[in-house]
Amino acid sequence: MSFTELTCQVAEINDLLNALSVLTWDARTQMPVGGIQTRGHQLATLSGMARKMILSSELGQSLDGAKREVQGEAPDSIRVRTVEQVRQAVEVFSRIPAELVSSLAELKATAQAVWGQARAENDFARFQPYLEQILGLNRQLAEAIGYRAHPYEALLGQYEPGMTTQSLKNLLEGIKTATLPLVQAIAQKEPPRWDFLTRDYPEDLQRQFALNIAQKFGYDLSRGRLDASLHPFEISFTRQDVRITTRYRRDYLPMGLFGVLHETGHALYEQGLSPALTRSALTSDLLGLYAVGGASYGTHESQSRLWENLVGRSRAFWELHYPVLQSTFPAQLGDVDTEEFYRAVNRVTPSLIRVEADELTYNFHIMLRVELEMGLLEDKIAVWDLPEAWNAKVQEYLGLEVPDDSRGVLQDIHWSAGLFGSFPTYTIGNVMSAQFYAALEQVDGLSEAVARGDYAALRDWLGDNIYQHGRRFSPAELLEHSTGKSLTLKPYLHYLESKYRWLYGLG
Amino acid sequence: MSFTELTCQVAEINDLLNALSVLTWDARTQMPVGGIQTRGHQLATLSGMARKMILSSELGQSLDGAKREVQGEAPDSIRVRTVEQVRQAVEVFSRIPAELVSSLAELKATAQAVWGQARAENDFARFQPYLEQILGLNRQLAEAIGYRAHPYEALLGQYEPGMTTQSLKNLLEGIKTATLPLVQAIAQKEPPRWDFLTRDYPEDLQRQFALNIAQKFGYDLSRGRLDASLHPFEISFTRQDVRITTRYRRDYLPMGLFGVLHETGHALYEQGLSPALTRSALTSDLLGLYAVGGASYGTHESQSRLWENLVGRSRAFWELHYPVLQSTFPAQLGDVDTEEFYRAVNRVTPSLIRVEADELTYNFHIMLRVELEMGLLEDKIAVWDLPEAWNAKVQEYLGLEVPDDSRGVLQDIHWSAGLFGSFPTYTIGNVMSAQFYAALEQVDGLSEAVARGDYAALRDWLGDNIYQHGRRFSPAELLEHSTGKSLTLKPYLHYLESKYRWLYGLG
Repeated sequence: MSFTELTCQVAEINDLLNALSVLTWDARTQMPVGGIQTRGHQLATLSGMARKMILSSELGQSLDGAKREVQGEAPDSIRVRTVEQVRQAVEVFSRIPAELVSSLAELKATAQAVWGQARAENDFARFQPYLEQILGLNRQLAEAIGYRAHPYEALLGQYEPGMTTQSLKNLLEGIKTATLPLVQAIAQKEPPRWDFLTRDYPEDLQRQFALNIAQKFGYDLSRGRLDASLHPFEISFTRQDVRITTRYRRDYLPMGLFGVLHETGHALYEQGLSPALTRSALTSDLLGLYAVGGASYGTHESQSRLWENLVGRSRAFWELHYPVLQSTFPAQLGDVDTEEFYRAVNRVTPSLIRVEADELTYNFHIMLRVELEMGLLEDKIAVWDLPEAWNAKVQEYLGLEVPDDSRGVLQDIHWSAGLFGSFPTYTIGNVMSAQFYAALEQVDGLSEAVARGDYAALRDWLGDNIYQHGRRFSPAELLEHSTGKSLTLKPYLHYLESKYRWLYGLG
Repeated sequence: MSFTELTCQVAEINDLLNALSVLTWDARTQMPVGGIQTRGHQLATLSGMARKMILSSELGQSLDGAKREVQGEAPDSIRVRTVEQVRQAVEVFSRIPAELVSSLAELKATAQAVWGQARAENDFARFQPYLEQILGLNRQLAEAIGYRAHPYEALLGQYEPGMTTQSLKNLLEGIKTATLPLVQAIAQKEPPRWDFLTRDYPEDLQRQFALNIAQKFGYDLSRGRLDASLHPFEISFTRQDVRITTRYRRDYLPMGLFGVLHETGHALYEQGLSPALTRSALTSDLLGLYAVGGASYGTHESQSRLWENLVGRSRAFWELHYPVLQSTFPAQLGDVDTEEFYRAVNRVTPSLIRVEADELTYNFHIMLRVELEMGLLEDKIAVWDLPEAWNAKVQEYLGLEVPDDSRGVLQDIHWSAGLFGSFPTYTIGNVMSAQFYAALEQVDGLSEAVARGDYAALRDWLGDNIYQHGRRFSPAELLEHSTGKSLTLKPYLHYLESKYRWLYGLG
């Protein structure tokens, strides 16, 4: 009885979270500019209601009853895990004071606008007081959530449950040690030709090609759609309606194309969720008040990276699909062969902007952000020293001079959005993607099918092992079940080493 | 204190209603087909929450306090009227049992699907049991709401507060007496040429022309947008975001064009609301759980009809804008002059389908529906006799044989959507539109400005007299304040007589 009641209450919370996502999607893709402020009220009210429902005595009662009901059932059964998800959310939520939540929400709205102006005008001083407040509130948030070794763990745990600061540090250190020499060796080599990527590519043809690939990957358009937006994203309102966006640049083909492949990876995860889990506690991040089906942000990112990079930037992929791309853009790509194209979309160049970075240098952008975030939390770096610290790390890791803060410390929206501790999930996703891929390469005939453009077996493996489960299993459990190992760097480093040594003739 | 609390509570209810409207707009214009069922859950949950908030003890307490606080204030002040709106909603809502609401909502979902099939397959028998249930629930609804003379009044009152069955009957009788001879006389005349309306009109050019006119009327695209949908509609999420849709037919120009002009009229009403009333009880139909700013459905319709018909089907309008239309479609309209075009879009032809009817025969479609609805409620007509009764009335009023129920009793979605008593608002809107227009024609220079295509003064008059007030004044008060009279047929009949006597040379 109580479990059934809990299920109904959680279903209604899910309806609210899904409605919030519709409002968000609309705001980013359809809403006229005049709607911003009143949309803000709608989002705030619905979030507040969701929070109230999670902390309500009705939910508390069903939770208590449900706990008793599921006692003795298998510890990883859907029922036990459902109860566990709700229990955790209620527990953490009740530790976070309502005023802290509303202060963060209010500050976010202003800070994002100020950050936008500061970035446009290259004026860090303007953003600095807001960043100081955001840092302060995140310190309070970490204390409220609680942690063992380091406040960073509490913040990171919002996105990557179970990941400790120490294991994150080890992970990043391992990547740094293995790939820094590789980047340095590549810097000595002749870069491949890539001028043709900046020719004129009409948007409608870009869309047509990319959407065709997305469908080949398995993106179901009867439960999805592709739009354009300022920043690419994937968002779902249950598995039945999972939408993606991308950003097109007429003068830079990879932007829109790999944006679609990346978001398609996220969308396959959401569309592949078990129908039985729809509107359940295992398809929503109750704590983040966000309807997202994945085990963690890193796990979700592993799927976008897997489809974008391990599949979409592979040699086999372009051997198969390049002729179609070439015939879509005969004037632009007529003088370019498959090999040249493959090398161009995989060229390694240390760059200032994270979202434009290649696979190999990308993680250095994450490392420097994590180190700075930790330094800020520990009070080892003051906010007013941040630009200098940023620039020093860019010099150290990427060998580049930062010409201005707009292309430096002000480039990302995350901090202004109140987010601390979310950056590592990008690198965790990279590492997981290779670990999953190495396991599925062991499946008989799977690599051959993928090379033929038959992605069904790949998708089924991911569906069986990852997608269908939603948040039922932790990232560690998913890895253990499907690869037999906990998170390990080996497959990722092997992937990077072999791919880029070959590409740059490093023997 | 209490009034302030009430304001905050109502603002949050508005946020919910606006979110519901976003979900509805999305479902009708953007949603992939797979999203239907889970969107239904989201709508049901949010409606349920709004209902709960309206009936909550918190709101009841603030309402009681607010009533005391506003005692002695001017009876038509914003504060007093706000309290009155909330009080009425709470009172009526608390009389309607929750089970009745959910039975109607559930039945609606199924009945609409069944109606769609029944209409497609011309099979009234299939829809009949559902219509019987809907009629039964509407009888219960009328009893719950309460009425003086006739249950129809309770249902009509949901859309047109203050309108009695007797005054509605008088109104319809007056229109019938005056316009039936006119329609019969026109039937003896040679119809104007209109073949050119069915030529091939590409949608993008239709959209461009219509949107241009909408903007000339004053539709603000920084707070709005135009999309295509199966049925045209206007919907708003506060005055800051008011969207319209239309339906284009490549082979019938008036469909998309007048659809846009009609919905623009609705949109100007919503965009013209006073900013001070945003998220208040005077911008939402709390009883209907719908975010709509107008005094009543009839008043809202008066604005769509005013811009569509009194402005958009006038001779002056086409004298001014036809050259642009002609240059937009040179191949299609090269051989058609202004006079011919004006006559074509105003031709009178009794027809089977309400939404395709001309200004003069339109009201007969409403009359027959009202008579049938009343007959059903009074048990004078049985549901299984309805097709026969329908066909007899079409013969009587329009002189047409109904070839099948798809084009007869099954044509409208309203009954399957659970709506009884909403049809009269279309005719009430017609009558009000002419009464407003006659008053504003008395304003110095206004007709001349409109003829020049300068719609600012017209819009300002409507804004001052109608739009800004939202639901602060009743339809009767709006008419009294701005035209000096209560609802009267005279201007409407004068408009129809003079326009159509001239058009058909009836002297």
